[in-house]
Amino acid sequence: MVTPVPAVDLLFEAVAQKGHVCVGLDTAAEYVPPAEREKARNDGEAVLSYNKALIDATLDIAACYKVQIAYYEEMGIAGLTAYSQTLKYIRGKKSLVISDIKRGDIADTAKRYAKAHFSGDFETDFVTLNPYMGMDSIMPWLSEAETGGKGAFILMRTSNPGMKDFEYLEINNGKRVYNAVGDKLSNLATKRTKCGYGLFGAVIGCTEREEAAKIRKEYPDLFFLIPGYGAQGGGAQDAAVLLKDGNGGVVNASRSVITAWQKGKEDEKTVNNALASEYARHAAEKMRDEIKEALK
Amino acid sequence: MVTPVPAVDLLFEAVAQKGHVCVGLDTAAEYVPPAEREKARNDGEAVLSYNKALIDATLDIAACYKVQIAYYEEMGIAGLTAYSQTLKYIRGKKSLVISDIKRGDIADTAKRYAKAHFSGDFETDFVTLNPYMGMDSIMPWLSEAETGGKGAFILMRTSNPGMKDFEYLEINNGKRVYNAVGDKLSNLATKRTKCGYGLFGAVIGCTEREEAAKIRKEYPDLFFLIPGYGAQGGGAQDAAVLLKDGNGGVVNASRSVITAWQKGKEDEKTVNNALASEYARHAAEKMRDEIKEALK
Repeated sequence: MVTPVPAVDLLFEAVAQKGHVCVGLDTAAEYVPPAEREKARNDGEAVLSYNKALIDATLDIAACYKVQIAYYEEMGIAGLTAYSQTLKYIRGKKSLVISDIKRGDIADTAKRYAKAHFSGDFETDFVTLNPYMGMDSIMPWLSEAETGGKGAFILMRTSNPGMKDFEYLEINNGKRVYNAVGDKLSNLATKRTKCGYGLFGAVIGCTEREEAAKIRKEYPDLFFLIPGYGAQGGGAQDAAVLLKDGNGGVVNASRSVITAWQKGKEDEKTVNNALASEYARHAAEKMRDEIKEALK
Repeated sequence: MVTPVPAVDLLFEAVAQKGHVCVGLDTAAEYVPPAEREKARNDGEAVLSYNKALIDATLDIAACYKVQIAYYEEMGIAGLTAYSQTLKYIRGKKSLVISDIKRGDIADTAKRYAKAHFSGDFETDFVTLNPYMGMDSIMPWLSEAETGGKGAFILMRTSNPGMKDFEYLEINNGKRVYNAVGDKLSNLATKRTKCGYGLFGAVIGCTEREEAAKIRKEYPDLFFLIPGYGAQGGGAQDAAVLLKDGNGGVVNASRSVITAWQKGKEDEKTVNNALASEYARHAAEKMRDEIKEALK
């Protein structure tokens, strides 16, 4: 059997070609232009149509997409059908997708989850994982990822205010809980990839620059998924600190891109998916260029 | 608007009446008797039929059920349809169900998740949550739970070997990471319930008895979901240490109950759902009685 190209190598290549933008398709039904939402048979289908327009409009700008499953679960089975179709659409266009599912469970269960998200209806390129229960909740994903050419980003240091509650606790070696996670992930990053990063990377929120610089330096072998751009407050300068040599991660923006049409001058009722996704394209382009500029 | 009875009060009542057994419906397709699996149109339907038989056979023994979503996600949309129908079936029988989904995400996303699992296709009584990202990932669930009469169990100290990696790290006040989680949960447990426990409880694995006794003493206001009975190695004596005054939690067993038929003398091919669920009933009864005995 031929071993497939690791997803992290494909993502590294995509970043080199297109820049650092990860478009987050956290597509709540109320983010779809109202006229289009009304036309659709249900919210799941409305979201799927808008997603397709967004993907078509940003394919040459987005290094990858991130799909937050909560926004689809909220719509029940119809929503998860739209989720499945969105993943298929992105992969059909030869782009890459991160399933933001933040799973974390005992080994037997992790194996089931890995099968669920690395094959079948919900097949993706990358997942996000939660490390709380320990490395035996991560390892079953790694063995599946190795044979399937898949990847993962493990929650390490997020940028929400609550991160101070547990991630940021000081442990008795003087480091913090999130360092303990990062250290374990570094130990995993031994498999040879073309790009030099480990198969599994880390989720690192845009944060104070001094801390970000320290994190980037301490974990040179981890490719980062950086959320919090735009709507969550992080900017290009913050993100740039986390991008080693200009290619050490992708930066996600969701609402600021997919709801950009809401800030346009048009009467909301006249906006269709084509126009809304043009707004998204411009927002993504602007973000890409801001990050590029910040990296100079 | 009438405030609904908190789910934790209903569960406390169910434990008082029926005992401590939580039947885990982690129903992989290969756990269904082969003849029944063959008859079904797809694995999702096979699992749903077997679940219904299991529920019917254990209604008077099980204080509640726990449904691990990974086993359903593995089967894609058909599996999640079976998941949704399983929840509906349990709730239709006026029993209680814990959705073992271990979600944990930023506040905006948590709100979406809470809507997804406290209403609609996936409506449940309790969820399990992962605290890694901090209390702002828990609080949106709490406000939804208060108005909806729902509950949650937050991962605190699990029993898998990997728990030592992060949960068990010593923090600089001499306690462990899991204590930091428990302390925050205790602070939340101020809402008056009839049973005296907080709306949100904790997941505590069957563990060394000395540590278990300490945990039970330090967190008298938390109702426990105790996994790891049977297939995962924990026994009645271990569980009993975590059950304050005989009613401070439920004890989950999954495989040891729902695959009990595989240890029977019958030719596998002749086993149907009725017989398999009789085996499950006996296993659940035995477990209930063992725990009752251990509590004496």
